[in-house]
Amino acid sequence: MTDAAPPARPEARSPRGFADRRGPDVAAERRIVARVTEVYERWGFEPLETGAFEYADALGKFLPDADRPNEGVFALQDDDDQWMALRYDLTAPLARFAAQNWETLPKPYRRYAFGPVWRNEKPGPGRFREFVQCDADTVGSDRPEADAEIIAMACEGLKAAGLAEGQAVVRVSNRKLFDGLFDAGGVTDPVQRLTALRAIDKYDRLGWEGVVALLGEGRLDESGDYTKGARLPGAVADTIRAFLGSAGEGTRAEALDAIARVGGLGAAGEAALNELSGIDRALTSMGVDQAAVRFDPTIVRGLEYYTGAVFEAELLLETTDDKGRAVRFGSIGGGGRYDDLVARFTGEATPATGFSFGVSRLASALRAAGRNEAATRGPVVVIVFDEADMQHYLDAVAELRRAGIAAELYLGRAGMKAQMKYADRRGAPAAVMLGGNEIAAGQVTIKDLDAGRALAAGLADNEAWKAARPGQQTVARDALVQTIRGIIEDSSITRSPRG
Amino acid sequence: MTDAAPPARPEARSPRGFADRRGPDVAAERRIVARVTEVYERWGFEPLETGAFEYADALGKFLPDADRPNEGVFALQDDDDQWMALRYDLTAPLARFAAQNWETLPKPYRRYAFGPVWRNEKPGPGRFREFVQCDADTVGSDRPEADAEIIAMACEGLKAAGLAEGQAVVRVSNRKLFDGLFDAGGVTDPVQRLTALRAIDKYDRLGWEGVVALLGEGRLDESGDYTKGARLPGAVADTIRAFLGSAGEGTRAEALDAIARVGGLGAAGEAALNELSGIDRALTSMGVDQAAVRFDPTIVRGLEYYTGAVFEAELLLETTDDKGRAVRFGSIGGGGRYDDLVARFTGEATPATGFSFGVSRLASALRAAGRNEAATRGPVVVIVFDEADMQHYLDAVAELRRAGIAAELYLGRAGMKAQMKYADRRGAPAAVMLGGNEIAAGQVTIKDLDAGRALAAGLADNEAWKAARPGQQTVARDALVQTIRGIIEDSSITRSPRG
Repeated sequence: MTDAAPPARPEARSPRGFADRRGPDVAAERRIVARVTEVYERWGFEPLETGAFEYADALGKFLPDADRPNEGVFALQDDDDQWMALRYDLTAPLARFAAQNWETLPKPYRRYAFGPVWRNEKPGPGRFREFVQCDADTVGSDRPEADAEIIAMACEGLKAAGLAEGQAVVRVSNRKLFDGLFDAGGVTDPVQRLTALRAIDKYDRLGWEGVVALLGEGRLDESGDYTKGARLPGAVADTIRAFLGSAGEGTRAEALDAIARVGGLGAAGEAALNELSGIDRALTSMGVDQAAVRFDPTIVRGLEYYTGAVFEAELLLETTDDKGRAVRFGSIGGGGRYDDLVARFTGEATPATGFSFGVSRLASALRAAGRNEAATRGPVVVIVFDEADMQHYLDAVAELRRAGIAAELYLGRAGMKAQMKYADRRGAPAAVMLGGNEIAAGQVTIKDLDAGRALAAGLADNEAWKAARPGQQTVARDALVQTIRGIIEDSSITRSPRG
Repeated sequence: MTDAAPPARPEARSPRGFADRRGPDVAAERRIVARVTEVYERWGFEPLETGAFEYADALGKFLPDADRPNEGVFALQDDDDQWMALRYDLTAPLARFAAQNWETLPKPYRRYAFGPVWRNEKPGPGRFREFVQCDADTVGSDRPEADAEIIAMACEGLKAAGLAEGQAVVRVSNRKLFDGLFDAGGVTDPVQRLTALRAIDKYDRLGWEGVVALLGEGRLDESGDYTKGARLPGAVADTIRAFLGSAGEGTRAEALDAIARVGGLGAAGEAALNELSGIDRALTSMGVDQAAVRFDPTIVRGLEYYTGAVFEAELLLETTDDKGRAVRFGSIGGGGRYDDLVARFTGEATPATGFSFGVSRLASALRAAGRNEAATRGPVVVIVFDEADMQHYLDAVAELRRAGIAAELYLGRAGMKAQMKYADRRGAPAAVMLGGNEIAAGQVTIKDLDAGRALAAGLADNEAWKAARPGQQTVARDALVQTIRGIIEDSSITRSPRG
């Protein structure tokens, strides 16, 4: 429209830590969300969707390792000068929503939610600044049955998503056990307590040697980063070590006995043991296996807002990394009781408990556990030979779609060979060819691309397949749908899911 | 944990223009997305999810009425000082993605996407700063069949979402018609052209009187806001009026004839008529009804990036507002051909065409068209009488869930009456009562809440229902699932969807 010099071209790239996801990855994550939400709705949880932004003061500063204002979040000032920030999890918005609508909500309020959350952290391999979380929470119940329900439902959700029995465990503990330990050891500074909890949260990864450094002066990690320690008195660190060492592999009741025997847990610790005992009773009433949910005093969770029971779901598989080295997959989700989050707004104590998992991370866990399913199939591609025959191509596409078969007309301008390559890259089960001869004879030629791929992948015996499935066949035009259906159904049976 | 004074309590509120959506609204929108994406996948479109943020230079400045940098978007500076912004639509991220991955994509590339987009505009009633869009686009095809496919698929998607035949129309035109008019009238300034197009885009709302003011000096609206006009020569405005007046109600071919008869459309106009004629041919080959897709020269679309065909889907209903006044619902989606968006990055012309709709807006349209479906049903609620009988309650809940019936245990601490009120507010079809007497006798009492609601709403005849459906019945404990199922299935038949 104008003769002005063209403007400089921007580079086509996305900001660091933000990923593009295409067909099969999107399908795998949607499958997880669909199956888990089916479970959550069957357990009586209702959906809630809140906006991406919250006022910064409503979000609070509960992100691990974020001590400066707005650190760790994407924040900006609205035109009325109020600071708002993208949610970093789904719990803070729930607390705000529950406080805002408390009078009119049915109580207890059970809700589930899924959607993106944003963390303004340093991105790295497999570490994104945007990811989808899926949460379920009960607000307004102090009953141990509410915690047990969340835990049991999380187990059922993970199983529905695809994890087999024994591939995951939920470990449970209670923050008040540490409150008791800290009380007994005279550690009263909340910052010191939080630093110590975050140190203990790394027990799994750093072992005792790393944790004790973080409970004391601090720790220099391999990358050269120095983390300031909690500076706990040595005697307290010793008690913590004994306490962490009480982790047994027996039943939940045996684990509680072992913890009780450590002693020195004070009033808060007694309360914790009572709560855990109630959760055990409810889990057992619900028929939840001892192997599926364990009590484990090393479980802490890094978030400040937990006030009671804490849960962590872990993948129970030794997996291998890119270089074939054995690695522990670790946590795939977690949660706990946070009785003070709603009270931040209302001033009134409102018990709440919930569980959260990252959808991409669960998808990775399913891959690691060998539980991912067959890749999604592309559409049947109808080849274009001659503009003049467009009506015939469009009719074939429409007929396939009406039969519920995904189908498309090739819409580029390339020749036959390129169209075949296109069909193959689209993952088409078959290509449909309506050349002049076929049209004149009332026929259609169908190329079986699934068979070709199965042969190429060594999934099928060459001779047997060649006999059973002609690579290409010409059939009567009115046998189009039936022939394509035969190819698709046959392939569903014979081809293995991708490993 | 600390004796410090409690911090000031934040107010529980969300930023203006960001909405919370609960159960039934979420369910209605998810139903739309699920049905439309089923259609789009059957037409061979694959899903793509991109991140919320794009670099500001990659997004470009294509928002209507946003002339200052970063106006209209939520932008912030990354820690490497680059400006990034939340996407304001799904087209700009697609163009960036396609440019970035062009070499490895199967071409033409068909993708669909849905997800939130953000506009930093003044919020108002029904006007949000975050909303979910659903888009389908074909990149890499200049064929009129590609436009026709998008239009026909949009029609099928709207129908799948719930609109009946005749409740919506897609109106189609071509931007090059105006290019021809402007060329002929000597209007070469691109800003002037864009201002004029945006004025014409308001024809539907303002009528010719409003448009002609905006084509000239400018217009003062009722709220006192002054909009600067395009200052077109009077003769050009006259031609535009004649052109807009050519809109006929005949077939697509008749509409093209009428436009051609206006004349003075120049070379660009001739190209537009050829393209529209190709689209008409393809639509007719696809069996798309003349009433479902019309050609209409008043269709412009406000976005700068369209280069050829433009589409607008409109709800064909007189609806009434809160005060019972008749209002036109207007546009429920639109799109068009934007052949230059990918070239912004690559410098190489890459044809592209697509259609987009707002999911909440379509949900409103379905409501206005009387096409919304029965509200989702809440879970069966099991009442808690006595802590000691918890095992019986948990067993009942588990049994219902295993039978695929959504069920929950009441987890608060309120009495029987409050629990019944809770069950009713949850939309429970029934409440399950296992008091001491029932348990001792191997029985269960079931209160039919659906029947109660139907009676209260006047949906059922009192006498007939009372005879057929006891409000409360005590049955053998092992008839629990069967009895609840009877209530649910009976209700599905008798109760009408909410209007």
